[in-house]
Amino acid sequence: SRSIDLAVIPGDGIGQEVVAEGLKVLSAVLPQDVKLETKEYDFGARRYHATGETLTDADLDALKRHDAILLGAIGDPSVPSGVLERGFLLKLRFAFDHHVNLRPSKLLPGVATPLKGEPVIDFVVVREGTEGPYTGNGGTIRKGTPHEVATEVSVNTAYGVERVVRDAFARAQARPRKKLALIHKNNVLTFAGHLWTNVFNRVAEEFPEVSTEYMHVDAATIYLVTQPERFDVIVTDNLFGDIITDLAAAVSGGIGVAASGNINPSGEYPSMFEPVHGSAPDIAGQGKADPSATVLSVALLLRHLGHEAEATRIEEAVAADLAERVGKPARSTSEIGDALAVRVAG
Amino acid sequence: SRSIDLAVIPGDGIGQEVVAEGLKVLSAVLPQDVKLETKEYDFGARRYHATGETLTDADLDALKRHDAILLGAIGDPSVPSGVLERGFLLKLRFAFDHHVNLRPSKLLPGVATPLKGEPVIDFVVVREGTEGPYTGNGGTIRKGTPHEVATEVSVNTAYGVERVVRDAFARAQARPRKKLALIHKNNVLTFAGHLWTNVFNRVAEEFPEVSTEYMHVDAATIYLVTQPERFDVIVTDNLFGDIITDLAAAVSGGIGVAASGNINPSGEYPSMFEPVHGSAPDIAGQGKADPSATVLSVALLLRHLGHEAEATRIEEAVAADLAERVGKPARSTSEIGDALAVRVAG
Ligand SMILES: CC(C)[C@H](C(=O)O)[C@@H](O)C(=O)O
Ligand SMILES: CC(C)[C@H](C(=O)O)[C@@H](O)C(=O)O
Repeated sequence: SRSIDLAVIPGDGIGQEVVAEGLKVLSAVLPQDVKLETKEYDFGARRYHATGETLTDADLDALKRHDAILLGAIGDPSVPSGVLERGFLLKLRFAFDHHVNLRPSKLLPGVATPLKGEPVIDFVVVREGTEGPYTGNGGTIRKGTPHEVATEVSVNTAYGVERVVRDAFARAQARPRKKLALIHKNNVLTFAGHLWTNVFNRVAEEFPEVSTEYMHVDAATIYLVTQPERFDVIVTDNLFGDIITDLAAAVSGGIGVAASGNINPSGEYPSMFEPVHGSAPDIAGQGKADPSATVLSVALLLRHLGHEAEATRIEEAVAADLAERVGKPARSTSEIGDALAVRVAG
Repeated sequence: SRSIDLAVIPGDGIGQEVVAEGLKVLSAVLPQDVKLETKEYDFGARRYHATGETLTDADLDALKRHDAILLGAIGDPSVPSGVLERGFLLKLRFAFDHHVNLRPSKLLPGVATPLKGEPVIDFVVVREGTEGPYTGNGGTIRKGTPHEVATEVSVNTAYGVERVVRDAFARAQARPRKKLALIHKNNVLTFAGHLWTNVFNRVAEEFPEVSTEYMHVDAATIYLVTQPERFDVIVTDNLFGDIITDLAAAVSGGIGVAASGNINPSGEYPSMFEPVHGSAPDIAGQGKADPSATVLSVALLLRHLGHEAEATRIEEAVAADLAERVGKPARSTSEIGDALAVRVAG
């Protein structure tokens, strides 16, 4: 479309800094005739401390009207663990039915990996985003006593599993290697595991060109450090996806370059794009954060909205920038953003 | 004590081969005056196919009488996923209240790691073994239909968490670095997460010399590949422990050398010791399996039974054997076992 109406949520810590650079690159890459409108929202720790609110119904109504959402990071040590995560991040993913949590891992030339042997890493994880142990089901009895019992309920539905499995098969089908791995723990979590495995095998019949494999999540962590080349597309549960995408980011250049999309493929609600790194309060406000992960999240955002050429231009610019960093002195957040803006415009 | 009455469960795949070497080294290391009695049990795929049984009440009664259990591996592709895992392995861990699942990770000299920079890795994971998402709670409705719902319930009790946290603090206190990390996901799994965090913080007050940190499980996978030196003792939930100990094994020399103990510290039931690797049906019967993980599990078994000197002798023998392997042709399972037996006897 010829206009983009973007909700911008800088959030906490380094969120402010990296989002500024993301927007800089976005403005630079868009052709003159695409009108970009942005509206900034003040969610995060400050708003929570000032009002006690994390994300209200009115907020959701306002956000809903945008084409997409760009998020920096949410989370601050001054807020008890879980309050902003459950009250904002997860609430938004659930409210906007962001069931495809897309997390590409690509080791770009010149980027350091902790792994020996310069492995070729280029895969994408399709993490389910609205079910599993993330639903907030469960509870506590006899809290604070020696007889406390706390439960967490992982909820998995055929509806929820099938749509994300289908999405993953379609992505695998569209890639040259056409490989899809299901990661779960179906030998222990047999109820959810059988649902995932059966749905996966059933949908596989519709994609005869896609070669498939199943892997337990524990074994998958071994392969991610010993044979990361093995992976093309991975589909997995919300919690396993959370865990393996951080590991995947670590082996493919670190969370400084890990982008993600919280996608509602139907378009019924806007999708949200965010770097995988958090708010990193220890380096906030110092211009030290690498905005590359946010800039790459902007590329995912553009691709989602149909601006494929611009998305690719951003990805090539980040790759070129990273390749040229080797042996050079570190640059500030805005210096990197400036350099990327020049590249994508050029 | 001056006698050891051992239940031996070779199990499936390479289990037979590696257990034979474990027993060889055990016999070699024990002083003349310690009487070793062993009784072999035929659990695993063959027994299941022949009788439909995995582990009966009578089996549990028989196993209960031994001082400890040595297990090779259980699991075979001919048995549906989950049947032997839930019906044997987990059933035994639960029946014998093996709540301390102990998994040391030590990168020994000469052993290859997939990580750059030759990191110093020497930590131990205390994984809870009888609670969390492993309880088998949950279920399925409308199975096989588009409206199927499958749940998995993670059950966590103050009683269960406190005893394993206490065990981990005591282990940290006894180590030179005296560091303990709690790994969980308390920003999302807030019910269980708060229980774990509160119990951990409360018990910490009794161990003022132990320095503690908290880490989300996703972040922990990053640290395990970028700063494994950071860890000394880790305490964690059953499922997170399953995942990070495979990753820990991968970075510290592979599952060929990863040992584990399923420990009941009260001694009310016998503890069980097993290599972390599975039955590896692809290489079974070929003499290719490395028995080191089983031999190191025998060391954990001896230490548990109070034979500290013999445990250390085995660990030193394995370390020396691994250090001498560099650049040499591969040896068979029994050749490695023979070499270790000679070393520990000498
Ligand atoms: C902050 C937290 C709620 C979140 C998650 O667990 O999904 C984060 O770890 C992520 O991966 O986006
Ligand atoms: C085989 C399986 C049940 C087991 C587990 O998940 O505990 C294994 O992965 C392990 O780590 O011992």
